[in-house]
Amino acid sequence: MTAAEARHPQAPAAESLDELAINTIRTLAIDAVQKADSGHAGAPMGLAPVAYTLWTRFLRYDPKDPAWPDRDRFVLSCGHASMLLYALIHLAGVERVDQHGKKLGKPAVSLDDIKAFRELDSVCPGHPEYRITTGVETTTGPLGQGAANSVGMAMAERWLEQRFNRPGLPIFGHRVWTLCSDGDLMEGVASEAASIAGHLKLSNLCWIYDDNTVTIDGHTDIAFTEDVAKRFQAYGWKTFEVEDANDCEAFARVVDRVLEVQDRPTLILVHSVIGYGSPHKQGTSKIHSDPLGEEEVRLTKRAYGWPEDAQFLVPDGVRERFDASLGARGAKAREAWSALMRRYGEAEPTLAEELKRLTTGQPPEGWDEAIPSFDPDAKGMASREASGKVLNAIAPDYPWLMGGSADLAGSNKTTIENDTDLQPRSYGGRNVHYGVREHAMGSISNGLALAGLRPYTGTFLIFSDYMRPPTRLAALMELPVVFIFTHDSIGLGQDGPTHQPIEQLAALRAIPGMITLRPCDANETAEAWRAILAQTGKPACLSLSRQALPTLDRSKYGSARGVAKGAYVLADAEGGAPEVILLSTGSEVHLCLEAYDRLTAEGVKARVVSMPSWDLFEVQDRAYRDSVLPPQVRARVAVEAAAELGWDRYTGFDGEAIAMRSFGMSAPAKDLQKHFGFTVDKVLEAARRQLGRGRDQETA
Amino acid sequence: MTAAEARHPQAPAAESLDELAINTIRTLAIDAVQKADSGHAGAPMGLAPVAYTLWTRFLRYDPKDPAWPDRDRFVLSCGHASMLLYALIHLAGVERVDQHGKKLGKPAVSLDDIKAFRELDSVCPGHPEYRITTGVETTTGPLGQGAANSVGMAMAERWLEQRFNRPGLPIFGHRVWTLCSDGDLMEGVASEAASIAGHLKLSNLCWIYDDNTVTIDGHTDIAFTEDVAKRFQAYGWKTFEVEDANDCEAFARVVDRVLEVQDRPTLILVHSVIGYGSPHKQGTSKIHSDPLGEEEVRLTKRAYGWPEDAQFLVPDGVRERFDASLGARGAKAREAWSALMRRYGEAEPTLAEELKRLTTGQPPEGWDEAIPSFDPDAKGMASREASGKVLNAIAPDYPWLMGGSADLAGSNKTTIENDTDLQPRSYGGRNVHYGVREHAMGSISNGLALAGLRPYTGTFLIFSDYMRPPTRLAALMELPVVFIFTHDSIGLGQDGPTHQPIEQLAALRAIPGMITLRPCDANETAEAWRAILAQTGKPACLSLSRQALPTLDRSKYGSARGVAKGAYVLADAEGGAPEVILLSTGSEVHLCLEAYDRLTAEGVKARVVSMPSWDLFEVQDRAYRDSVLPPQVRARVAVEAAAELGWDRYTGFDGEAIAMRSFGMSAPAKDLQKHFGFTVDKVLEAARRQLGRGRDQETA
Repeated sequence: MTAAEARHPQAPAAESLDELAINTIRTLAIDAVQKADSGHAGAPMGLAPVAYTLWTRFLRYDPKDPAWPDRDRFVLSCGHASMLLYALIHLAGVERVDQHGKKLGKPAVSLDDIKAFRELDSVCPGHPEYRITTGVETTTGPLGQGAANSVGMAMAERWLEQRFNRPGLPIFGHRVWTLCSDGDLMEGVASEAASIAGHLKLSNLCWIYDDNTVTIDGHTDIAFTEDVAKRFQAYGWKTFEVEDANDCEAFARVVDRVLEVQDRPTLILVHSVIGYGSPHKQGTSKIHSDPLGEEEVRLTKRAYGWPEDAQFLVPDGVRERFDASLGARGAKAREAWSALMRRYGEAEPTLAEELKRLTTGQPPEGWDEAIPSFDPDAKGMASREASGKVLNAIAPDYPWLMGGSADLAGSNKTTIENDTDLQPRSYGGRNVHYGVREHAMGSISNGLALAGLRPYTGTFLIFSDYMRPPTRLAALMELPVVFIFTHDSIGLGQDGPTHQPIEQLAALRAIPGMITLRPCDANETAEAWRAILAQTGKPACLSLSRQALPTLDRSKYGSARGVAKGAYVLADAEGGAPEVILLSTGSEVHLCLEAYDRLTAEGVKARVVSMPSWDLFEVQDRAYRDSVLPPQVRARVAVEAAAELGWDRYTGFDGEAIAMRSFGMSAPAKDLQKHFGFTVDKVLEAARRQLGRGRDQETA
Repeated sequence: MTAAEARHPQAPAAESLDELAINTIRTLAIDAVQKADSGHAGAPMGLAPVAYTLWTRFLRYDPKDPAWPDRDRFVLSCGHASMLLYALIHLAGVERVDQHGKKLGKPAVSLDDIKAFRELDSVCPGHPEYRITTGVETTTGPLGQGAANSVGMAMAERWLEQRFNRPGLPIFGHRVWTLCSDGDLMEGVASEAASIAGHLKLSNLCWIYDDNTVTIDGHTDIAFTEDVAKRFQAYGWKTFEVEDANDCEAFARVVDRVLEVQDRPTLILVHSVIGYGSPHKQGTSKIHSDPLGEEEVRLTKRAYGWPEDAQFLVPDGVRERFDASLGARGAKAREAWSALMRRYGEAEPTLAEELKRLTTGQPPEGWDEAIPSFDPDAKGMASREASGKVLNAIAPDYPWLMGGSADLAGSNKTTIENDTDLQPRSYGGRNVHYGVREHAMGSISNGLALAGLRPYTGTFLIFSDYMRPPTRLAALMELPVVFIFTHDSIGLGQDGPTHQPIEQLAALRAIPGMITLRPCDANETAEAWRAILAQTGKPACLSLSRQALPTLDRSKYGSARGVAKGAYVLADAEGGAPEVILLSTGSEVHLCLEAYDRLTAEGVKARVVSMPSWDLFEVQDRAYRDSVLPPQVRARVAVEAAAELGWDRYTGFDGEAIAMRSFGMSAPAKDLQKHFGFTVDKVLEAARRQLGRGRDQETA
């Protein structure tokens, strides 16, 4: 080697193929971030040895079959380190598949894809996105979410094991590996999820904590000085420590010990150096969120013994290294599993069919046949009560419909009565006790859904605020989680304004891709469940009353099947040409029906439109929408005991809304409804104002 | 005593006055819940001895001066146990004061008030509400919030101490005592806050954990089996344990030891029995949320040696007991403090004046004089950048304006440059490092505001989702917290859909009493700060761009002072009679102005309305609103890179909105703006459609 070559090597120098591969991951991350002029190279640079060692020596994953149900899951909770994951997926040669697991004949992530990091329509977006990139097991970036998802994935594995494994036929037995940053572990949602994982003794779960002591604002000692290992021990986890992230052998020895732990989840604290190799920026917060800059890129490559001017270089032997380790091991395991699965199909044909549906996102045949219909009843029942009955009617026909509540199962009516609790000694139970941990409940449910289960959650509507991030991520990932929210208005009464949702409905309706439903009676509740479970690519929020609601006589009113279209005519003027339209959802629909009766008696042509789901209504064709809400009828009154925001879409400049314009109060529901104007008289007044009569009377 | 009297005593039997007082608290809670037929008596029954002992022996509180700035704070984080607090306030004889601390000449909570528990307009609502009830230091009920508030209160005490105390003049030195339930400690927000409290070594903070092993859904062992003490030790807390909540002496001995701890916060685990004394329900989840029932009330009173038929009984001697302990101690301490304060006023008149303003919620004189105005500049600056400049301009004149970011200070521009960090060795610093803990940041800020400071928070707008509960509670409590949210649209670019807010603006606008502001340039940002800080009874959300925005030439456009009215005419048609109105906020205003120029050149009479705050606009009188948005002009185009929800209020049936109808994507901002239709051409197309021209062209 000449002196010039030593300074500017043309080929990378490395002591081992391992080191070469690790530096390939690092330089791919560096080059992609530099080219995009945006992104985070520091974490990939520090974590490359750990991730490389895990993937090549331990991960049970077949790059040729990335949809294999019993694969290990690798979750990058620190999603900003996305280039680490893209580099691994690329080097491992993961094949691209569609959402049904069908191979598309090209790599999940090509080198060109990496070069298009953070560009429009790239499969290498800024943060890892489920569905966009094969090999990405969940969308991460909002900190704490991936970690909490991984608890759900580990719970799902245990659940699947208990449900499907048979003697000699161990169909499930995979592990979940999660890479977490300081930020992940500071977030409350990760704390909640870790406490649940400890309680459930999920020994198939391992979190690898990138303890690099650097966050965006500086050294972690400015805000994060707790004893993380001790905290996790308190949750019931076993903890390990690796002194130096670059010491692959030490890390591997710890993972060997992790594999032996049978009774609890494990945490590996790895001391790493963010931006390892960058002479001027390693170990500083400067490298967290900024590209290195061209000169520093060169210096860093020189430090790695890398050709300084080479970009996106994958040296010979690196891909082969992944093939020979991860690839070979994964292929063998997956082939053994396929053989096992063939035997399983013969021995357990019913379960095999069930498993096929579960893993491909199809509901069971006939899942909706037992959905009840409810007889008319003036006293009726709370829609939460109806929801509980419907859930229990569907549950026997939908074996992987499962879920629970954040310590409000009795109030939310979310218990599947003829089933057991999911607990360490009975992982196959379908009733989950989340404790008072709404946020983790949401994030864990996303993890359950990612594993193919059909999860639901339960809490009061007000506490949807505690779980906004996973609710949103369910919509972004198109996961069919059912979020059950009860006690959905001031109608809950005495608990007062801290418990009375006002802005929550609007806030949920605003989430793209989320279906929000607020049924008005037991039959609308049943149809809401039918509409929700019939689709498999969208989450839904079910807004349910605490208080009893009359069960409408459907021989007199429009069929509850109209729920599927989001809004429908419940009661109409004779001849179908209304002068005024009363629009409403949930408990307030009944006020409108009473007002309708009185208006009709007075000779006013009124229509009542039940609008349980704006989202479902908005995707109907214009003809249908105009048939329900004729554009020429602009005398309209909307009635909903929630924030007004959004109703103008249906009331326009001319109509009006009876809605909440303040927080609630603590009092019996009846008193509150009167206090806040949710009475038949107020609806009538508004209707008359709309018809131009009330105004005349007022000025008279 | 006859046998009949023994079974049905007419006067309570008790071994001591302490026991009599404790049973008074219990029976008041029982009777109030039974009368309201709603509420939670179980926790007050279990916790009465602990709370009684704390109040009578330790709490530094003068019932005659409940606004005393240096009083100890007692926070009932388990707000469902509200009757415990109302009973204490009643028995202690706390006087009712208005929001300025002025005495109203009646008790904060009378016996009649307790009888009206959970009735309309009662000062004893279902959960404790700040402002509604004197003596309630913060609104609680949503679990974890009170605990996290109390960390803010303890931080505030340390801050006040460092800022105001002078040698020989220790104006501040109080403590914060917090009662927490299992539910509080399961919530992630409490975990985050506890970690911060440990980091900050807040030895003036003590959490008392009601370890009663029962939650609504059953025994805590179904979901909560972690080692709580060890977890708190890991956070850096000192922990203590009390075996039996009924052992007042043991509890008092532990509190004596707590008072000696100088270097860390303390947690006391108290083993209690929920519903203590109820023969059939104590120690069960049945007593958590339901009234006991008349028969069980009798049996419970019998178990206490209480007259079975007596209701709302306060035996002789009980109130006197509180007077002689809490009252006498508190009065003495407060009088000593007042004397100290007189000396302080002479020695430190400037600080004394400052303190007066701080404690009565008035901003400093001349606080807004240094608010800058920015020169026109086509390149301009990001509104987050402008916000940082404005904050730093105001900070010297507003000494108790302080806050920080959840590890994004550099991005949020929230650092007060000429000040120090709030850290264990420098509690007087005005820059707080919250770590990646958005939820606790919000809740702690509420606590800071409750102590009189003027706090602000900082994170990305997307992560407003992580802190919805405290954002809402700030509005409910009318606390003037400033929530700074930057990176407020797809304009943030490559970080992608996980980081691009869509529904967040709508979700914030939906909160009653919250002011949401999205300024379009540096001068609107300055005026937004002016509008926010000028009022002292409302929180505000500031939605700021990551990307640079031109600084408008205000000699050409409407004055930025219009921000105070929420919306104003920025550019108008000659003669002020527009044919079409373009409405917008933030970064998209500039698209509208470009479109306006082109329309004007084409001879179209257009108006551009900048609408930084819907909330401020909606409270203007109709004449002003109609002057900005003339009702007869129905050709309207709204442009905002956020969810459309709510814009119909201003566009009506006839107008249209260019808004987001899906999640964003990862790409450079320019590409995204084009992809999602945020271009001048699209605004022009919409405007022409509105004018009836575009449609003709399309069909041509």
